[in-house]
Amino acid sequence: MSKLTDLPKRILIGRALHSNKLGETLLSKRIALPVFASDPLSSVAYAPGEVLLVLSVAGVSAYNFSPWIALAVVVLMFTVVASYRQNVHAYPSGGGDYEVANVNLGPKAGLTVASALLVDYVLTVAVSISSGIENLGSAVPFVIEHKTFSAVAVIILLTLMNLRGVKESGKLFAIPTYVFVGGVFVMIAWGAVRGLLMGETMKAPTADFTIHAEHQGLAGFALVFLLLRAFSSGCAALTGVEAISNGVPAFRKPKSRNAATTLALMGGLAVTMFCGIIALAMATDVRMAEHPATDLLKNGTPVGEGYTQNPVISQVAEAVFGNGSFLFIVLAAATALVLFLAANTAYNGFPLLGSILAQDRYLPRQLHTRGDRLAFSNGIVLLAAAAAILVYIYGADSTKLIQLYIVGVFVSFTLSQTGMVRHWNRLLAGETDPAKRRHMVRSRAINAFGAFFTGLVLVVVLITKFTHGAWVALLGMVIFYATMTAIRKHYDRVAEEIAAGDEPGDETVRPSRVHAIVLVSKIHKPTLRALAYSKLMRSDTLEALTISVDADETKALREEWQRRGIDVPLKVLDSPYREITRPVIDYVKRLRKESPRDVISVYIPEYVVGHWYEHLLHNQSALRLKGRLLFTPGVMVTSVPWQLDSSEAAKLRARKRAEWNAPGSVRRGPVTESKKEKAATKK
Amino acid sequence: MSKLTDLPKRILIGRALHSNKLGETLLSKRIALPVFASDPLSSVAYAPGEVLLVLSVAGVSAYNFSPWIALAVVVLMFTVVASYRQNVHAYPSGGGDYEVANVNLGPKAGLTVASALLVDYVLTVAVSISSGIENLGSAVPFVIEHKTFSAVAVIILLTLMNLRGVKESGKLFAIPTYVFVGGVFVMIAWGAVRGLLMGETMKAPTADFTIHAEHQGLAGFALVFLLLRAFSSGCAALTGVEAISNGVPAFRKPKSRNAATTLALMGGLAVTMFCGIIALAMATDVRMAEHPATDLLKNGTPVGEGYTQNPVISQVAEAVFGNGSFLFIVLAAATALVLFLAANTAYNGFPLLGSILAQDRYLPRQLHTRGDRLAFSNGIVLLAAAAAILVYIYGADSTKLIQLYIVGVFVSFTLSQTGMVRHWNRLLAGETDPAKRRHMVRSRAINAFGAFFTGLVLVVVLITKFTHGAWVALLGMVIFYATMTAIRKHYDRVAEEIAAGDEPGDETVRPSRVHAIVLVSKIHKPTLRALAYSKLMRSDTLEALTISVDADETKALREEWQRRGIDVPLKVLDSPYREITRPVIDYVKRLRKESPRDVISVYIPEYVVGHWYEHLLHNQSALRLKGRLLFTPGVMVTSVPWQLDSSEAAKLRARKRAEWNAPGSVRRGPVTESKKEKAATKK
Repeated sequence: MSKLTDLPKRILIGRALHSNKLGETLLSKRIALPVFASDPLSSVAYAPGEVLLVLSVAGVSAYNFSPWIALAVVVLMFTVVASYRQNVHAYPSGGGDYEVANVNLGPKAGLTVASALLVDYVLTVAVSISSGIENLGSAVPFVIEHKTFSAVAVIILLTLMNLRGVKESGKLFAIPTYVFVGGVFVMIAWGAVRGLLMGETMKAPTADFTIHAEHQGLAGFALVFLLLRAFSSGCAALTGVEAISNGVPAFRKPKSRNAATTLALMGGLAVTMFCGIIALAMATDVRMAEHPATDLLKNGTPVGEGYTQNPVISQVAEAVFGNGSFLFIVLAAATALVLFLAANTAYNGFPLLGSILAQDRYLPRQLHTRGDRLAFSNGIVLLAAAAAILVYIYGADSTKLIQLYIVGVFVSFTLSQTGMVRHWNRLLAGETDPAKRRHMVRSRAINAFGAFFTGLVLVVVLITKFTHGAWVALLGMVIFYATMTAIRKHYDRVAEEIAAGDEPGDETVRPSRVHAIVLVSKIHKPTLRALAYSKLMRSDTLEALTISVDADETKALREEWQRRGIDVPLKVLDSPYREITRPVIDYVKRLRKESPRDVISVYIPEYVVGHWYEHLLHNQSALRLKGRLLFTPGVMVTSVPWQLDSSEAAKLRARKRAEWNAPGSVRRGPVTESKKEKAATKK
Repeated sequence: MSKLTDLPKRILIGRALHSNKLGETLLSKRIALPVFASDPLSSVAYAPGEVLLVLSVAGVSAYNFSPWIALAVVVLMFTVVASYRQNVHAYPSGGGDYEVANVNLGPKAGLTVASALLVDYVLTVAVSISSGIENLGSAVPFVIEHKTFSAVAVIILLTLMNLRGVKESGKLFAIPTYVFVGGVFVMIAWGAVRGLLMGETMKAPTADFTIHAEHQGLAGFALVFLLLRAFSSGCAALTGVEAISNGVPAFRKPKSRNAATTLALMGGLAVTMFCGIIALAMATDVRMAEHPATDLLKNGTPVGEGYTQNPVISQVAEAVFGNGSFLFIVLAAATALVLFLAANTAYNGFPLLGSILAQDRYLPRQLHTRGDRLAFSNGIVLLAAAAAILVYIYGADSTKLIQLYIVGVFVSFTLSQTGMVRHWNRLLAGETDPAKRRHMVRSRAINAFGAFFTGLVLVVVLITKFTHGAWVALLGMVIFYATMTAIRKHYDRVAEEIAAGDEPGDETVRPSRVHAIVLVSKIHKPTLRALAYSKLMRSDTLEALTISVDADETKALREEWQRRGIDVPLKVLDSPYREITRPVIDYVKRLRKESPRDVISVYIPEYVVGHWYEHLLHNQSALRLKGRLLFTPGVMVTSVPWQLDSSEAAKLRARKRAEWNAPGSVRRGPVTESKKEKAATKK
């Protein structure tokens, strides 16, 4: 089949990978880090700014709380990473939070996590792309001037890429991610050198601004609430941490250990970058306000609607590297690129989760099939449409979108960690080896703390963010939950309806004879083929059936039938009103009534065509007739295809489709492996 | 089935008419006149105004030419009516202009007429509804203030009515048409009484206005051109005259004579009304201008954009009956209603012509089936969309739309009459009876004069209207013509490709054995039924085939297979990548390669569901697999249906659809009759 792959395509995206070779592309830690960490690492591009933004409500002086908030985020990050290291070891099958919650807490918890994750994927796209546009905009003003348009354009671009099935390659991820991480570290280091060693003062572009505090001198409960809100915003840095737990099968062996190491590495990088950026922001006097137009003052007057508040990372980079400097531009581009890659992560995760949910019959069964282009396409388009609508409604404002973001993440964190506690409880009940028990108890303690802490954060997020937008995310979760429950209920009802009884039932004994009917309109090759095939089947009786809509034509047909000596009796049904379907249905029903134990087998010659518009010109009556016939019990309908010359075109297209690579295959790893491990886990 | 018809429906539209009873609803002349004449009679609502409008270009004095133009229109009307009386006698089958041109002048002329008629139907909807809105607007100002909106709303309403399949009843037509005709005659008579007998002066609302002549003192060639243009516009009164020639089969016997009488009656009514309105307009000093905003002066100053120029019929009615009087309102309402009925005529004619064209393979074959809801729906939506676009583009301005209208009508008039001349020539060649010959010669003379006169008008219309919009109509005709030619070419190519050779060919001898495969995913009732049916068919070999995507599930399947003692061997194909289609296709291809003379028969258990969304949840893999299998030669695919409980809902819907009455059945008459007559005509 590779012969069909044309040269330009091979040059552009490499030789098409046969699906059997998927097993060879396991990821080393060096590559796995960028593949899985683009999402969590990229969030340091917006999380520090969100903290400052919220604090600014109480005035610049409140910025002094930011190191404490950063510390809380770091502790939370360590907790979450430590917890997920347990997940990775316990569930190496790649089921992720959904599997953990489903197995340990029951299907309702699992479905809640699934709903949260689906909402989360939508928001990952919306937030990452909006933030990416804001970062790109600090270097390319055009983009920020047409913010919503640019963000939607990027969504469309990513969608088209994923619909075409661009293979996600490790290298594609590695370069921008490493450039981004390297750039941030260089910035932190260079900032430290300039500030601490050389004693230079670096000033952010907003350093001279003052902030109009909406609530000056906040204290007591109000202050605590504000600090909790700032912390909630900072928690945006934790989004995407759970991604690795879905991807364990894609790692090289020892899979779980490598995944755990990568997770720790990612956590370490994320907190260092997060704290470094906050520290630099404090050192360079970055000023950010929740409502910059009114609350950010330049020489005592508000900056007004025209002002664009650049992300904190770009302001810091400007202070450290200098505005328009090469490194500043590189960092801005890398930041934007990493954020877009983070969005792309959701394009892979959404169908993957969909396939797992389909396996559990919460989503249409066909989503289960790997590499099923149609299923993936639907998922991709759904994801993109939802994200684009959010981006449009919120004007691609990452700050507003982040309000919706964090609740879903912490729902799945909390339920997943609670599930892990149950997991260890169950294992402990059956384990006697003291060494293993000790290990399990330790793991349980870590997960319990994780569950408690993330649960606490979830409550904080819900309280502080509910009216700011978290309700939208909750609504989305409810919709997903309800839809999936309804689908499952439908499948269960059908499964019950069609379950085979244990004694030989109706279906196996009833029919006694087959009465075969070949539908004939004219004598041509398709008809002759259908007649030949039907004769081969040796049914008990065989007749040809034609609907007479024109007496002359029918007469001609009868004459040719005789002339050719076709040894099948030709039955003619009159249809003065030129209907095709009704006379046939009536005839079949009559036959069924006369001998209810017979099965009617109807042969329909069908044209196989190559272009969509040809479908409009052929087979319409046949298809409609078939649709009606299938409603009649005791009937089976056989299509005898005749391949028109033009069908070759469609055959080629179908073959190309079959070679299509579903997005996200890199991070999923080969199915055989994961299946085996899953089966092992189940025991 | 009538039991299913619920009571409210029976009360509203009468007992559902079984299609076999269609023959009983033949039309008396009394009913046939309004059914067929709403289109031509309604055109007197706008045609007189169009004449005045064009003449106004040369100033009010040019209005004095209007009686001469009316005379020319009357002569033309008599010619056309006399000509079509010949058509009606010669072609009682209802084929109309298309059939006449096709039979006598060849397929290209036929297709040209068909294209012209299709464009004509679109314009009938656009013009009639726009004019209807203008007439309604003279009584209800709101409608005219939201002209385009109102016109599109009426189009949508008519479309929905026709999509639902409201039965066109004779009475529905009779009442508004007779009210309209009666109202116009009362108006003419009352105007004559008031003006001539009582010597009152009646003044139209625009009587005091003056007209700024765009070309004052036009003379010579320019004047002739203007008069010809005015005449072309007046020819709008002739649109729809040909409708009766399509509807002969719907008349009571003697069909042709009754149709001819109705035609004459209609012509007489139309010219009387046309001339009467022109005369009243002259008597009441109606002032109309092509560009009223600038050329219509009130006390010497232009009336401006805000002015609404009411149709001439409503101005005259205001002068005769008085503004806001009961009779004025009744006439305005009847006029609007008749115009909307005229538009509805096109909703019936379009699918009818489509079915005739489909019979000749210029349109998709399924349009041929009478009462095929899907086919009609497509035609109705196409017609409505095209008309709505025109209405939107031209702002529902009937004057502008009429510029496009007349060219199509005269194309079909001219070609049809030319065809009739050929028809008589052919008959004369074989006729010896002098009495009959004399009759034929007379008919030929009438048709020849008709062809000459309408051809002349066509040339005049083309010259005077081309730049005013006739080019749009011509473009539409070219598009229809090209599309239909392409479809015919496709069908011809396919017919050639599939034509059966005369000696017993490949199709009849090749296959020797049948290898049957039953696709199995789980053991449930649908699978058991498929197995039972396939066993009945006694193919040479039979095996069950399952795709293993999960080792555990496959194991369970194998065990249950043995436990139940199913005597069909179960073949398991591994599919580590959870694909269904590809392994099956590969397996079938392998079988075909091994024994190329065998036929593979694949049995697929299919769910029959009741709701559209259930389709999304079932059969998707089966359908896709089937689609791919049909591309492989030597394969037949049998669907073994399992009717889910929910399928009952769909069955009911399908039954309702079958009872649906296709629009236009009243004017078409029963098929059996027309078929017989057609067959007789062919001899």
